[in-house]
Amino acid sequence: MVLHYNVRMSVVLDELVKLLSLERIEENLFRGQSQDLGWGTVFGGQVLGQALSAAAQTVPPERHVHSLHAYFLRPGDVSKPIVYDVDRIRDGSSFTTRRVVAIQSGRPIFNMSASFQVSEPGYEHHEPMPEVAAPETLKTEQQLAAEAGWPQSWLERAANRPFEMRPAQVIDPLRPTPRPARRMDWLRTVGALPDNPALHYSLLAYASDHHLIGTALLPHGVSFVTPGMQIASLDHCMWFHQPLRADDWLLHVMESPVARGSRGLARGRIYTRSGALVASTAQEGLIRNRQR
Amino acid sequence: MVLHYNVRMSVVLDELVKLLSLERIEENLFRGQSQDLGWGTVFGGQVLGQALSAAAQTVPPERHVHSLHAYFLRPGDVSKPIVYDVDRIRDGSSFTTRRVVAIQSGRPIFNMSASFQVSEPGYEHHEPMPEVAAPETLKTEQQLAAEAGWPQSWLERAANRPFEMRPAQVIDPLRPTPRPARRMDWLRTVGALPDNPALHYSLLAYASDHHLIGTALLPHGVSFVTPGMQIASLDHCMWFHQPLRADDWLLHVMESPVARGSRGLARGRIYTRSGALVASTAQEGLIRNRQR
Repeated sequence: MVLHYNVRMSVVLDELVKLLSLERIEENLFRGQSQDLGWGTVFGGQVLGQALSAAAQTVPPERHVHSLHAYFLRPGDVSKPIVYDVDRIRDGSSFTTRRVVAIQSGRPIFNMSASFQVSEPGYEHHEPMPEVAAPETLKTEQQLAAEAGWPQSWLERAANRPFEMRPAQVIDPLRPTPRPARRMDWLRTVGALPDNPALHYSLLAYASDHHLIGTALLPHGVSFVTPGMQIASLDHCMWFHQPLRADDWLLHVMESPVARGSRGLARGRIYTRSGALVASTAQEGLIRNRQR
Repeated sequence: MVLHYNVRMSVVLDELVKLLSLERIEENLFRGQSQDLGWGTVFGGQVLGQALSAAAQTVPPERHVHSLHAYFLRPGDVSKPIVYDVDRIRDGSSFTTRRVVAIQSGRPIFNMSASFQVSEPGYEHHEPMPEVAAPETLKTEQQLAAEAGWPQSWLERAANRPFEMRPAQVIDPLRPTPRPARRMDWLRTVGALPDNPALHYSLLAYASDHHLIGTALLPHGVSFVTPGMQIASLDHCMWFHQPLRADDWLLHVMESPVARGSRGLARGRIYTRSGALVASTAQEGLIRNRQR
C-alpha cells in the first residue's frame, strides 16, 4: 500500500477501505461487511461504494467508471453481511456495463447499473466552481455541531468519521429555518490513500450520499429532527468526468431544483480545489412528514 | 378510446401509441415492434417509452412512475421485434421498483430501472420556468429545417412525426457555431390522446430523448454533420414530479453542465405552459470526433 503523504490513515478510514475491498466469493459474487455508524441501518453511501467496488472488480482496471445509477430498495442490516451479485450485461469495445444487486436475507436491498470506459480525449467545457471560502478557513462538522449544542451522543457518533467535512455555510438541523435549497461542503478522507483509482471513485460515491437529499428540505425550514419527518434516499446517480483523489479537498456544490409529492430531488457538482469538475451527482429522496 | 379534443390522431402518432402498448407474452415478458424513422437503428426514445410501458404494466395503475434510470447498450435493429423482460425487484407498501432488460437476437440492447409510488402530498418547491416565447409565435422544426435548406431527404424524414416541436431558438445543425450549452423546445403530440396516465409518461420519455445530448455540442460549434462526429446516448434518467399530458404544450429546458473524456452530460426540466415543473431529465452521451 503506497501512501502519498506521511499521514497515518485513521482506524475508521482504514476499516472503510477494507470494507470497500470486499471478499470475492465467485467470479461475479462478492461479500461485504458493514460499519455501524450508530443509527442501526447501513449507511447508503457504504452500499453504493461497495456495489461500485464489486462492479469495478469485474472490469479491466484501465476502464474507469464514468457513471452509476442506483436505487435503495430496503434498509440494510448492519449485523449481517451484504452479498453483491454482478451481472456482466455488456463488454463492449469502448464501454463496459455492469448491473449489481445487493442482497441480504434473500432479498434485494439495493440495485445499481454502472458504466466504465477507456480514457479518451474529447470536447471540454464545464460550469465554473462557485466562489467559496478555502477549507482551512472553515470549521469542521464536529466543531459546528459542538457550537450548536448537539446532544453528547450525537457528538460522539460524529466524532470519528472516515471523511472530514467542512461546510461552507452554517446549517443547524436543531433550529431549521427556511433558506435557499443550496449548500456547499468541502470533504476529504481523514488520511492519505493508496493510488488505486477505483478506491477513490468508491470513496467519493460513499461520501456523496451525505447532505444531498437534505438540501431539498432547506426551503421548508425542516430537518431530520422535525417531528414526524421521514427522510430516505430513493435513488442515486453519479457521473465521473475525470480521475480524482478522495484524500485531497473536494467541494460538493448541492442544490434542489424541485420537491413535490413527498419526494425531493437534489443534484450536485464536485470540484477539486483548483476548480476542475470531477463528478456530478443527483439523488431523489423521500421527504415525508406524516404529522404535517 | 376517449379523445380530449376534436383532433384526429395522426397515423404516425396512432402507430406510436400502439407500439408503446406492447404485446404481452407472459406476466413479465412483453414484445414490441419498432418505428423506422429513417436512420436504420431504433430511436432510443422508443425503447425508453416501451420499457417504461412494460414496467408500468406490472404495477398497480394507481402507482405512477416517479423516476427511471436507463442505459443504452447496443443499437436496436428496426427490422426485428424487441423483447422486454421485467424483473419485479420490489413491491413495497409505498414504492414499487422494476428492472427491465430489452433484448434483441439474444443480447441486451438496453436496461432500465424505474420506481413507482402511490400519490402523496408533501413539501413543494421548484425552479421557475425561464422566460420564453409562446409556442404559437414560434416556427416548427420543419419550417426551420426548410428555411435552413436541409436536404430534401431529411425534410421528408422530419415531415411526419408523432411530436410537434417548436424550438425557442434557431439552432442550425448545418452551420454550427459556438454558443452557450442551453436550448429550450416546446413539444406536444400531433393529436389528442386518451386519458391513460401511463401512456403520457411513456410518450414524454419518448420525446425527452430529442436534442438532450446535442446540447453538450453547442459550445463547441459542432453538430451531427461535422465530419468524424459520433454521437450516441449512453444513459437517460427522468424524474416525474406530477401527472402530465403529452398532448398539451410542454417546455423542455436543456443545458449541459459539463463535457470531457469524449462524453457530454445534459440535464433538463420540463414545464407545462402555466409553469408547473412536471419532470426533470438527465442524459450522458458519447460525443466523439475521431477526426479532431
